[in-house]
Amino acid sequence: MQIAIPLYPRFTALDAVGPYTVLAFAPDIAVTFVAAERGPVIDDKGQLTMEAASSFDEMARPDVIVVPGGPGTRAAMSDRRLLRWIAEAHEHTRVTASVCSGALLLGVAGLLQGRSATTHWGWLQYLKGLGAVPVAERVVIDGRLMTAAGVSAGIDMGLTLLATLTSAETAQTVQLAIEYDPRPPFQAGSPHSAPPGMAKHALGLIS
Amino acid sequence: MQIAIPLYPRFTALDAVGPYTVLAFAPDIAVTFVAAERGPVIDDKGQLTMEAASSFDEMARPDVIVVPGGPGTRAAMSDRRLLRWIAEAHEHTRVTASVCSGALLLGVAGLLQGRSATTHWGWLQYLKGLGAVPVAERVVIDGRLMTAAGVSAGIDMGLTLLATLTSAETAQTVQLAIEYDPRPPFQAGSPHSAPPGMAKHALGLIS
Repeated sequence: MQIAIPLYPRFTALDAVGPYTVLAFAPDIAVTFVAAERGPVIDDKGQLTMEAASSFDEMARPDVIVVPGGPGTRAAMSDRRLLRWIAEAHEHTRVTASVCSGALLLGVAGLLQGRSATTHWGWLQYLKGLGAVPVAERVVIDGRLMTAAGVSAGIDMGLTLLATLTSAETAQTVQLAIEYDPRPPFQAGSPHSAPPGMAKHALGLIS
Repeated sequence: MQIAIPLYPRFTALDAVGPYTVLAFAPDIAVTFVAAERGPVIDDKGQLTMEAASSFDEMARPDVIVVPGGPGTRAAMSDRRLLRWIAEAHEHTRVTASVCSGALLLGVAGLLQGRSATTHWGWLQYLKGLGAVPVAERVVIDGRLMTAAGVSAGIDMGLTLLATLTSAETAQTVQLAIEYDPRPPFQAGSPHSAPPGMAKHALGLIS
């Protein structure tokens, strides 16, 4: 099974590497990072460089795509090569997935018309303008579309996706292999649990 | 503040990118990936290539180091340049941290003598042979040493480390920014909660 994760300038590394690690740990799944051209792509902090191993043309029909988010989404929303690849790949995928603001790219590519979807809590309101029905959940499944909330939600989505593609047992085995038994030291991971006023500061870090 | 994350062949990507994303989201913190030489380093699946932006020589005195784990730890345990860099950097760090089997590298570098530490559940037994006191917890702090359990525990450790380096408020703000409000779809993340017999299969995925 071939899974492709597109990279674009100023993507958020964990959006891509969370699902990558979950999916690539499974036997019989190959995960490939792709971009318009092969080569290095720099993340949102300018401090991490990952290689796209294949170009979009070389990876036209993956079984699954997982589109990461990040501050670079804004510019990527007018990247016609990326959007065309997403739209054309989606015609043949078994699952088309996104993490965080990657959902906005699915939307601009025309995939979310009338579909339920989620994204980072800070961008949820923008889904409506792209024709989607915003749902404030960790992972939202609507037919072949699977969208995840912000950044770290890609790990939860990756496990859900892996269970769909293989079996619950395989997903659980990977969960154990990566010791995904989370123990956040604070309870500030959602706007509902975070201290009042913190959302504005958090948005300042990711815009 | 300068944080360095060493990369070596067959590291596990999430071990490095979990703490990286948490720490790099904070203002006034620069995180740099380092290796013996600048350039590309390939992960444990052979499908992800990340760039080391600095050589060990160029980054001799970071404020913090975070050593990731992975199947490559075995070979890295006899990589004298890596071990010397860890030992020498540790003399000046504010915090020396590890994720997963990265703790074994701290041990071989001589940092764990008589110290409490943790690592992936599958390797916990090996800490004793390196002079450490193994503790089966998510994150273990002993003086300037901060060690995390397997792979995904690097995110929890990253937030704990960030709170130590800056403030609880900054760590919470980053937690909200990355929407770290985990909702694993299964409860198989530890050998205690996973179905019986699964540990052996999980170890097969990471050895």
